[in-house]
Amino acid sequence: VVGPCAACKILRRRCEEKCILAPYFPPNDPFKFTTAHRVFGASNIIKFLKELPEEQRPDAVSSMVYEAKARLRDPVYGSAGAIFQLQRQVNELQEQLAKARAQLVNIQCQNDSLLALVFMDRVDDNVNDDPYFYCFDDHSAGASFFDDGNVG
Amino acid sequence: VVGPCAACKILRRRCEEKCILAPYFPPNDPFKFTTAHRVFGASNIIKFLKELPEEQRPDAVSSMVYEAKARLRDPVYGSAGAIFQLQRQVNELQEQLAKARAQLVNIQCQNDSLLALVFMDRVDDNVNDDPYFYCFDDHSAGASFFDDGNVG
Repeated sequence: VVGPCAACKILRRRCEEKCILAPYFPPNDPFKFTTAHRVFGASNIIKFLKELPEEQRPDAVSSMVYEAKARLRDPVYGSAGAIFQLQRQVNELQEQLAKARAQLVNIQCQNDSLLALVFMDRVDDNVNDDPYFYCFDDHSAGASFFDDGNVG
Repeated sequence: VVGPCAACKILRRRCEEKCILAPYFPPNDPFKFTTAHRVFGASNIIKFLKELPEEQRPDAVSSMVYEAKARLRDPVYGSAGAIFQLQRQVNELQEQLAKARAQLVNIQCQNDSLLALVFMDRVDDNVNDDPYFYCFDDHSAGASFFDDGNVG
């Protein structure tokens, strides 16, 4: 004889054979149900599950329990707070990545100019060129060392 | 005479002067309340607000409405889905940033070696050095051009 599921036990109701909550709220984990129940309410949980095909219900329960935990941990911002924090982190990382990539373009340009200088020094020791490198932070605005004026 | 707030109107109850929901659910925006109500239930919303100091209640309502919208838009994953997606994005960006920074270290090392070569070529044209640069992707494993063996 299997006892009632955690939900029915806590709600003090008969756990029927086809109880919609039983598969997701086993009797050995009452905390899982009380968490979701305190935030969404049993009737909303049942309503959400009924609206979903059976194969999507486990994920729906997991995400509701996850959100409920976030709301109980942070009653002001809940999981929306985690979203705002992560969005800020994404923005910061995107800025840092754009900066690093711009530095890479610039330093690669310097490298190309230096390689050209080393090459020229070795091919013709008499060349008295000025080691001025046309590499700018705004790469699009600057002329490359390999522009028409310098090479050819 | 001000009519009942959106919450009391939808719940068909008398909107008292000190109604806890009235400041956040004005009568001209019933959708805001129905959204939060469909996901959390009016009694849970009232319970959450009562547990918070008044100055935190506007943010709590905003975050609950935000989460409720996410749940109605995505009944399986809700705002937990947005969190998982953002976490994945953060991981990807962190990987890309680490890669870009490793490239920067490597290319800066190449640059330093090239600069040293240019300098040496100009100081002493007779030096017949081999332009082999000790710069590796795994920077820690490789000897720098400026290691004892090369300089001094």
